[in-house]
Amino acid sequence: MRTHYCGELRATEIGKTVTLFGWVDRRRDHGGVIFIDLRDRSGIVQIVSDPQRTPDSYKAAESLRNEYVVKVSGRVSQRPPESINSKIPTGEVEIYADNIEILNGVYKQMPFVVSSSEADSVREEVRLKYRYLDLRRDRMNRNLQLRHQVVKAIRHFLENEQNFIEVETPILTRSTPEGARDYLVPSRVNPGEWYALPQSPQLFKQLLMVSGFDRYYQIARCFRDEDLRADRQPEFTQLDMEMSFMSRDEILELNEALVCHIFKAVKNIDIPRPFPRLTYAEAMARYGTDRPDTRFNLELVDVSEIVKDSGFKVFSSAVQSGGTVKVLPIPGGNHAISNVRIKPKGDLFEEACNAGAKGIAYIRIREDNEFDTIGAIKDNLSQEQKQQLIEKTGAKPGYLLLFGAGDVDMVNKSLARLRLVIGEEFGLIDRNKIDLLWVTDFPMFEWNAEEKRLEALHHPFTAPNPEDLNDLKTARAQAYDLVYNGVEIGGGSLRIYQREIQEKVFATIGLSMEEAYNKFGFLLEAFEYGTPPHGGIAYGLDRFVMLLAGEESIRDVIAFPKTQQASCLLTDAPAPVDEKQLKELHVKSTYKPKS
Amino acid sequence: MRTHYCGELRATEIGKTVTLFGWVDRRRDHGGVIFIDLRDRSGIVQIVSDPQRTPDSYKAAESLRNEYVVKVSGRVSQRPPESINSKIPTGEVEIYADNIEILNGVYKQMPFVVSSSEADSVREEVRLKYRYLDLRRDRMNRNLQLRHQVVKAIRHFLENEQNFIEVETPILTRSTPEGARDYLVPSRVNPGEWYALPQSPQLFKQLLMVSGFDRYYQIARCFRDEDLRADRQPEFTQLDMEMSFMSRDEILELNEALVCHIFKAVKNIDIPRPFPRLTYAEAMARYGTDRPDTRFNLELVDVSEIVKDSGFKVFSSAVQSGGTVKVLPIPGGNHAISNVRIKPKGDLFEEACNAGAKGIAYIRIREDNEFDTIGAIKDNLSQEQKQQLIEKTGAKPGYLLLFGAGDVDMVNKSLARLRLVIGEEFGLIDRNKIDLLWVTDFPMFEWNAEEKRLEALHHPFTAPNPEDLNDLKTARAQAYDLVYNGVEIGGGSLRIYQREIQEKVFATIGLSMEEAYNKFGFLLEAFEYGTPPHGGIAYGLDRFVMLLAGEESIRDVIAFPKTQQASCLLTDAPAPVDEKQLKELHVKSTYKPKS
Repeated sequence: MRTHYCGELRATEIGKTVTLFGWVDRRRDHGGVIFIDLRDRSGIVQIVSDPQRTPDSYKAAESLRNEYVVKVSGRVSQRPPESINSKIPTGEVEIYADNIEILNGVYKQMPFVVSSSEADSVREEVRLKYRYLDLRRDRMNRNLQLRHQVVKAIRHFLENEQNFIEVETPILTRSTPEGARDYLVPSRVNPGEWYALPQSPQLFKQLLMVSGFDRYYQIARCFRDEDLRADRQPEFTQLDMEMSFMSRDEILELNEALVCHIFKAVKNIDIPRPFPRLTYAEAMARYGTDRPDTRFNLELVDVSEIVKDSGFKVFSSAVQSGGTVKVLPIPGGNHAISNVRIKPKGDLFEEACNAGAKGIAYIRIREDNEFDTIGAIKDNLSQEQKQQLIEKTGAKPGYLLLFGAGDVDMVNKSLARLRLVIGEEFGLIDRNKIDLLWVTDFPMFEWNAEEKRLEALHHPFTAPNPEDLNDLKTARAQAYDLVYNGVEIGGGSLRIYQREIQEKVFATIGLSMEEAYNKFGFLLEAFEYGTPPHGGIAYGLDRFVMLLAGEESIRDVIAFPKTQQASCLLTDAPAPVDEKQLKELHVKSTYKPKS
Repeated sequence: MRTHYCGELRATEIGKTVTLFGWVDRRRDHGGVIFIDLRDRSGIVQIVSDPQRTPDSYKAAESLRNEYVVKVSGRVSQRPPESINSKIPTGEVEIYADNIEILNGVYKQMPFVVSSSEADSVREEVRLKYRYLDLRRDRMNRNLQLRHQVVKAIRHFLENEQNFIEVETPILTRSTPEGARDYLVPSRVNPGEWYALPQSPQLFKQLLMVSGFDRYYQIARCFRDEDLRADRQPEFTQLDMEMSFMSRDEILELNEALVCHIFKAVKNIDIPRPFPRLTYAEAMARYGTDRPDTRFNLELVDVSEIVKDSGFKVFSSAVQSGGTVKVLPIPGGNHAISNVRIKPKGDLFEEACNAGAKGIAYIRIREDNEFDTIGAIKDNLSQEQKQQLIEKTGAKPGYLLLFGAGDVDMVNKSLARLRLVIGEEFGLIDRNKIDLLWVTDFPMFEWNAEEKRLEALHHPFTAPNPEDLNDLKTARAQAYDLVYNGVEIGGGSLRIYQREIQEKVFATIGLSMEEAYNKFGFLLEAFEYGTPPHGGIAYGLDRFVMLLAGEESIRDVIAFPKTQQASCLLTDAPAPVDEKQLKELHVKSTYKPKS
């Protein structure tokens, strides 16, 4: 029976006889003496087999190969001073192996090297196909253990310190009104009917508040059949919470305490509280995005007022047609960023265009604040306008001012993109910094240009700010997002619990009560029977853990992820199935492969 | 802000001013003074509003109705001696309400009474349709809280005391070889292909052992599209565990410690260890079932040897054609059970027939051990046979012997059924008793009469007993089930980790290595790269909690269960969907409703 994990052996154990189980991370033969790095999920320890001192284990030691599974018994010894390895926690000791038992071997060529002692750069497709070997590697092992620690910290805080109850909600259910596409499951027992996999437990958690459970949480699996882009997974994990009888600020404070508890538990880092708060309006004005990375400054400046009557039509017509002109002022940008990069085919030009812009206007600030730019701009700005631009943007000699002009959304999006690219390039982002902030007061509605109507920015159960009830169309929602180093890791809102307000909101998005009942009937009916004031939040657990792990992709913190093509390279899911199965389910595929 | 939960107020709080939130459980008007039972998830406390002492709250108190949501502030007071209610934990105190704020009302007729102070017998369909109100009731509230406590105890034990790591495995995956029907999910991105929802994380947890995670657990959602019978749910929750480097006995001991920890944590009951163990063979011989309820005795007795040559053909031909004759001896049965009940159309006769028997033979033991039975039996038993029957069954005057004769499975099944019915009827089952036992040494294979071949009783990765490798067909498996008061709550096995044995097992069930690779290729390949010896177990969490809660149906320990028709009466899932959705998924329904 195992007495210790490999990675936990220290000098304090010297003299003890231990039994270990693990994998051969590597084997070295030093003139007759064999050294084995034995690995289990806790780490590595050095095993020694010496034909003189441990003759019984030597024959087995000789036949070991990388990744063999072995049981080792032996005595913990002090390493000679010259062999102490301060890079690993067990580096002071080694085990003289009295007995080595091979439990299993390796019968095929390993697709890649597992040991972290060898440099690795394995293609992700290969890693995913042999995920069980990839998970043996130090990096993935640490990531999954970190994920476990995060969840453990969450549970501890919510259950033991805050009286939350975990309740499991259904996976086979009906569509939730979240807007994305549903995964559907045909019902065999109720032919012609379908279950949907939940995009979130939204409706169920609100029902649990109606039931009086008052503080609910769940580490919940959610599903969205989205188009392939960015770093999404068809199934993902959410920390889902809902609370009754709490104000918005009480909810934010509780969540700050939760997040601080997580950082303390898994990183031993104290995050100061309260977290800064930015309104949506302020975040958009200053950073052009509702999830600003505030680890570095570079803020956008609205110069519409200054240039609205300028002779440079790109600026003036942008403002006159309801748009905006904003500047990203870049200290040192004049020297660092050449014209080639901000003109057509330049990398920064392309970044802006990918974000919707038609181009970039720029002004270089030379000695004595002289403007260097294209003639059309220079000739059309008065001395006063130039002076105002300098003052408002805080520009000094050596600055580069990048301009966005046009539709507000587009300007914000493209300058926010440039801000990130330049922050990165100029090394402005302190990798050790942890910036957590709330973005609050989102608008209730956004304009759906396609359908020519307002639609709920979050979902139609989000409560409007009571101060804004007179003009719901422009009302602020009591909604909040938590942003961590420029990534949204959580979001939520107070919910509507009064029927009159719910009806007004439906009316605003052009939904009759009848249609509303068709869509969310059971929730609206539940609201008739004594609904407490309530609100909640949901965190993207995968993304949060990814940031904590310093990874770039959520795939690296999920044990068995899918590719961007929504397939699993390990199991080959999805896959064709027997016609017999489909027949039983009363469905068939209508797909005709092109020949 | 809330200062206390209702149910936690005690005499120690007298004099304090508290703020409570909750629902009006009921309201009584006692000559001007209004008493309110205020309820939250922790319990109930009495609120008093008195026009003299608390004039400010009186108007609101007057307008309260059952299930209104209120905020109450007031002082905790000692109840007068004559009003102390020892039936509730808060019965010594009451709150004089300085302030009552109505947060929400009830706008429709309640479909049933929530308060546990009124007798309830609500039809289950109504409870499920208004589940959010049903969950307000004391019974369901307690059940969900118990479930939460059970899961919390499990996590605490496995994580903090046993170094298990929780790993999430995919819900959108490929079929697992568990034998039941899969739920399928069409892939939009990979048209013509399907995901399956997992029947268990079996393959993934074995892969995690290959990865070196060595002690894995998960509270895992599983899915089986089964036919409607008994107390099953399309989705259910499993405590899923897998361990490396442990012997069978080490696994059983760890699991006994886990189960004892749960009983101690949620019931404060000490269960003695080790748990009794019965081999499968012994369980079948003595109880006719592999999940015996051992809270009462009544054991089956095999009398084949005694009656195999008797002139009563039902007995002798049963034995001669490879079957068996077994007896359920019932003390006091002669008096208590009339002939009408064990003859055609009788209730016990029907029970036996529903379990596959063609009828029941019986012998009544009269004074002086005289036999009272049908002539065909009496006339065909020798004095010696009678004497042997008396001795072997332990029968005494007043006994009734019920006989099963024929195919072994059928005899066991029908007598096991009669044993339970009679145990119940005779009051032999001590409701306070907790009997936990392991059933071990299951056979590896069972005969599939339809397909005329052996098939794996559990799954083809179950390890055979090393003593039985010479004749695998009849080998015992290293499998084990945990039985709690006659209900199987968990089951598992050691797994095969050596290729030679795996190949032999496939050969025994008539599966070529090629076919095996087609079915489980990625697992078999994983086994090539250093697989540790491992084994695991899975518990049916719903069923375990049901037994702990003293409920008869797992629906009563699931927040939002489905009916036996696999539908959710609350959300109406499954439901028809838009043709547009199906088109996007490249599928269509082939169901033609009958007009």
